[in-house]
Amino acid sequence: MRLVQFCHKVAEGIVRVGVEQDEGQGIVDLKAFDPSMPSTMREFLELGPKGMDCAKRALSSGQNVLPRSDIRLLSPVTNPEKVVCVGMNYKDHCLEQNAPIPKEPIIFSKFPCSITGPNDDIILPDESQEVDWEVELAFVIGRKGKHIKEEEALSYIAGFTVANDVSARDWQMKRNGKQWLLGKTFDTFCPLGPALVTTDSLKDVHKLGIRCFVNGATVQESNTNQMIFQTEKVVAWVSQFVTLYPGDVFLTGTPPGVGVFRNPPVFLKPISSELIPKRIVEIFLLRRKEMSWSVRLMRSDRYATQSCNGEIFYID
Amino acid sequence: MRLVQFCHKVAEGIVRVGVEQDEGQGIVDLKAFDPSMPSTMREFLELGPKGMDCAKRALSSGQNVLPRSDIRLLSPVTNPEKVVCVGMNYKDHCLEQNAPIPKEPIIFSKFPCSITGPNDDIILPDESQEVDWEVELAFVIGRKGKHIKEEEALSYIAGFTVANDVSARDWQMKRNGKQWLLGKTFDTFCPLGPALVTTDSLKDVHKLGIRCFVNGATVQESNTNQMIFQTEKVVAWVSQFVTLYPGDVFLTGTPPGVGVFRNPPVFLKPISSELIPKRIVEIFLLRRKEMSWSVRLMRSDRYATQSCNGEIFYID
Repeated sequence: MRLVQFCHKVAEGIVRVGVEQDEGQGIVDLKAFDPSMPSTMREFLELGPKGMDCAKRALSSGQNVLPRSDIRLLSPVTNPEKVVCVGMNYKDHCLEQNAPIPKEPIIFSKFPCSITGPNDDIILPDESQEVDWEVELAFVIGRKGKHIKEEEALSYIAGFTVANDVSARDWQMKRNGKQWLLGKTFDTFCPLGPALVTTDSLKDVHKLGIRCFVNGATVQESNTNQMIFQTEKVVAWVSQFVTLYPGDVFLTGTPPGVGVFRNPPVFLKPISSELIPKRIVEIFLLRRKEMSWSVRLMRSDRYATQSCNGEIFYID
Repeated sequence: MRLVQFCHKVAEGIVRVGVEQDEGQGIVDLKAFDPSMPSTMREFLELGPKGMDCAKRALSSGQNVLPRSDIRLLSPVTNPEKVVCVGMNYKDHCLEQNAPIPKEPIIFSKFPCSITGPNDDIILPDESQEVDWEVELAFVIGRKGKHIKEEEALSYIAGFTVANDVSARDWQMKRNGKQWLLGKTFDTFCPLGPALVTTDSLKDVHKLGIRCFVNGATVQESNTNQMIFQTEKVVAWVSQFVTLYPGDVFLTGTPPGVGVFRNPPVFLKPISSELIPKRIVEIFLLRRKEMSWSVRLMRSDRYATQSCNGEIFYID
């Protein structure tokens, strides 16, 4: 299943949980199907199998389907208790920066308010001149756990999605006492979604293609088989320290092709400072793309013409 | 006013907002006074002046007062959107470690699930042998803001309380790629409270004594006048990066006397590995103590005999 959060265009601000009929197709409104269902993904996930069963029934009913033109997609999770990120987690990304392969996961975080929707803008802050893209495979926790065993970890994951770990390199690498937090957590620095693809509908999350585009050009391209610490290991590792809760978002690290390690470095910049009318960019769609996102870059209140897209997909 | 969160002992798990009549005295149940009032501090703070006015009326009514024996205090805020911490923010703490005075605030974070109540246990995790105490002045945001000016920052702060930034030094300083997060965010590593003392009832938060006790012995003692970046500066600084929301918790840094910089280093350790029956430690009370807390240390499921207390107080 492809779970989403959305607003009806006639009722902005009212969050709903939905199920996509297929990628880019109609959305089943879960609360219309069963009024006892909650309105947010976090509450939905807290229901556990009861919620998932209801979503399956809603999808197969073929009823309460909304055309995409009537809705606005939000990120699949909003206001999680935590957003956990893994640094330096692709072998080929370590190679591009001549860094040794880490022996333990390197964990940092973003504040939940950095999450933004798959079609929303990334705001390029005036405080940074070095904003980088970083596409990542993300997953969302489905049930509470502490000291989770690696062999049981997958059962704690509700599903997977695509994110990017937008990073202000000047703040991450040169300031704030080398603590990465500030450079990673500007508002809108965590585009997430569109869909949360449930764990049972994915074959092997460690054999997926992963790509990032800026202005239509491929800037990152790799495979999740390059991950150093796979998702099960990351869940087990982090749950040594903190209790995981339904809705917690994990970003699993980025493949090579980031801007900061290019020669010369390249960063996200609006290529025009003119005020360009706002428009919604369509979700980037290709058959067999399991998850994809598309965001537009914006500096403060000036709209820029650049776009940034990401996709994670099966390779035949 | 001294705002608190509590549970009735007969209804554990049901959170209520209350107003302390005086430090250690009866608690006015806000929802009993006005059923339209919300049940959590975060929702209460979202009401802004409307909530504060109601709390004042409830306090002066002299009604709906619960004796402390009927309630269990929680931390004054639970589930904030973020817990923001400032590192190296006391001049005398920089001196004790021969570190230069930072030119900019150093910001890191804990996950909200690390918050624990003022009488609850700190769990000493088996994963660390170097757990340190770190008493700190904390404050809580009262209204939403971004790019807040320093001269207006105090109006964004609902009130102040006491916390400690419990720190696993082995994880903070030697592992996790020197990112502090993991060492700072074990479950229960952020005891907070008991009361949120509203900003209007404090004279000068940068002229307060601050102390930490372990097993009754003073281990930290300083004054908030040693702070390098004062509260207004910290609010303005962090709001450059992220939107602040009502309920967001800030820890403002620790004074000297931490265990890791002693020679030899001293850490929190249970002094007995025997199973000692659990008991609630009374809140440490002294006249003119504005805020104080008391927590008991515990390693996994074995109860230890050590205690840890903190206080922040006016100096005559």
